[in-house]
Amino acid sequence: MDFKSHMEKWNLLINNALGDYLTINDGPGSNINKAMKYSLMAGGKRLRPVLALAVCEMLEGDRNDVIPFACAIEMIHTYSLIHDDLPAMDNDDYRRGIPTNHKVYGEAMAILAGDALLNKAYELMLTYTAANSEGIKRKLEAMKIIADGAGAEGMIRGQVVDLESEGAVINREILEYMHKCKTGALIKAPVLSSALLSGASDKEYRLLENYAENIGLAFQIKDDIMDVKGSLEQMGKLSGSDAAAGKSTYVTLFGVEEAEVLLDNTVNSAVDALQSFGEKAWFLKELAEFIKNRCS
Amino acid sequence: MDFKSHMEKWNLLINNALGDYLTINDGPGSNINKAMKYSLMAGGKRLRPVLALAVCEMLEGDRNDVIPFACAIEMIHTYSLIHDDLPAMDNDDYRRGIPTNHKVYGEAMAILAGDALLNKAYELMLTYTAANSEGIKRKLEAMKIIADGAGAEGMIRGQVVDLESEGAVINREILEYMHKCKTGALIKAPVLSSALLSGASDKEYRLLENYAENIGLAFQIKDDIMDVKGSLEQMGKLSGSDAAAGKSTYVTLFGVEEAEVLLDNTVNSAVDALQSFGEKAWFLKELAEFIKNRCS
Repeated sequence: MDFKSHMEKWNLLINNALGDYLTINDGPGSNINKAMKYSLMAGGKRLRPVLALAVCEMLEGDRNDVIPFACAIEMIHTYSLIHDDLPAMDNDDYRRGIPTNHKVYGEAMAILAGDALLNKAYELMLTYTAANSEGIKRKLEAMKIIADGAGAEGMIRGQVVDLESEGAVINREILEYMHKCKTGALIKAPVLSSALLSGASDKEYRLLENYAENIGLAFQIKDDIMDVKGSLEQMGKLSGSDAAAGKSTYVTLFGVEEAEVLLDNTVNSAVDALQSFGEKAWFLKELAEFIKNRCS
Repeated sequence: MDFKSHMEKWNLLINNALGDYLTINDGPGSNINKAMKYSLMAGGKRLRPVLALAVCEMLEGDRNDVIPFACAIEMIHTYSLIHDDLPAMDNDDYRRGIPTNHKVYGEAMAILAGDALLNKAYELMLTYTAANSEGIKRKLEAMKIIADGAGAEGMIRGQVVDLESEGAVINREILEYMHKCKTGALIKAPVLSSALLSGASDKEYRLLENYAENIGLAFQIKDDIMDVKGSLEQMGKLSGSDAAAGKSTYVTLFGVEEAEVLLDNTVNSAVDALQSFGEKAWFLKELAEFIKNRCS
């Protein structure tokens, strides 16, 4: 079984589904759809939907049930990037090598495109569930997991902590809390919502939760290490853009070497959590390694 | 039966429920809750939740089922005001006599507070429905009505048309489409979601839809007239802030007198739509008159 071709297959599937979901009536105001599509279809690894599909495959669930939820999570992820990039937030001009949403469509439209993607995530899940009401309670619980992960106790909470930590040195506890919310919550959401939709037992659910928490943490540590190493390659000195911006990271707190040990341990914990699934967990295990070894 | 005391009773009920729903865990990032509460609890007529409660009472539905949905709609309404007021949008410093959210909490926090209120609306409806799953299909349909009304084919679509119409003269057709989306959709949503939750028949549902469309339109025409008349009282000349900003309104298109005739006709149509409900519709009928006669 080949990790890379699986990734590509699922990426294509997700991209096609996302494109289909983003249709809109023509007429006045339909430019909003262009702004939504611009960021949603700008690529990326589709890590979150892929996680949902991989969990579904492992548990032999119904993929048709999982796709709308997986796409909704990608919409929520994309809206958060559009708003994060705004001048009032991180003020970024580029993302994934192309101009950010507000650079192309203006700030007002970018705010609305983000709002519209967040709302569309719920429209999509509700529309699918209304039309496919078998297992409606499970579907509702899956939506609730996603909503909680995206909200003021989840992703948005992490963004607020990030905002309030700017220029301040924070301790490990707050750093972990921030990342658990900011990126962790929306990495957990596809794993757990898909587990629920795919009929996971309580035990399987808890193991997958453990896995998701560990890969969420690994994702962030790797991000922090890449920030520093990237600047080493490009500028010949070991101080990344995060440190320059006065941000606390796993590297500023522990140094590169210790952060790499922490990364190894975290990925190992993620893989260990899946042992009882045996061979069936091959993709999720390789995905944990992929997170460790990725270059972007 | 007294309209004013009914309004006050329902306002209190809604305000208490909104306050209860906005609890959050303490700790890092909990300031987001202050920013959310600041705008959500800043008052206003609570027109949308009151509509939901009035429909429920008329149809003898279960009020407990309607309150979470009514409050969710008020959260969506409030998020849209916070984002509308941002410097990149309408750039307003005051709303309801107090500084706008971004003037108090800063732009970044205001963007996140808006996002969090939109997301919270869905968390609230999903949490309630998961815990009270009787009539789960109806509840899901009610959520879908609200999501559609708030999204890129509803309220947000209207905001985009408004944005794109700035400084341009638009015709009646586009003006009506804009308002149907921008304010109409989120006035229809509480009426129709409550009708569904309260067990309306198909015929009752259609009559209420007709009513809601007419009061939504009346609300906007009255807004446009007040804008001009307010400036007449304050500045002694009959040109409101909308006209000064180059916005097309019912008054710039038809003049004050014809706009007032249109307002009368629209309110009469709303009241007529409810005739078959008889005495039970007294509050909703008076609410239509209230929209016509309000001063703010």
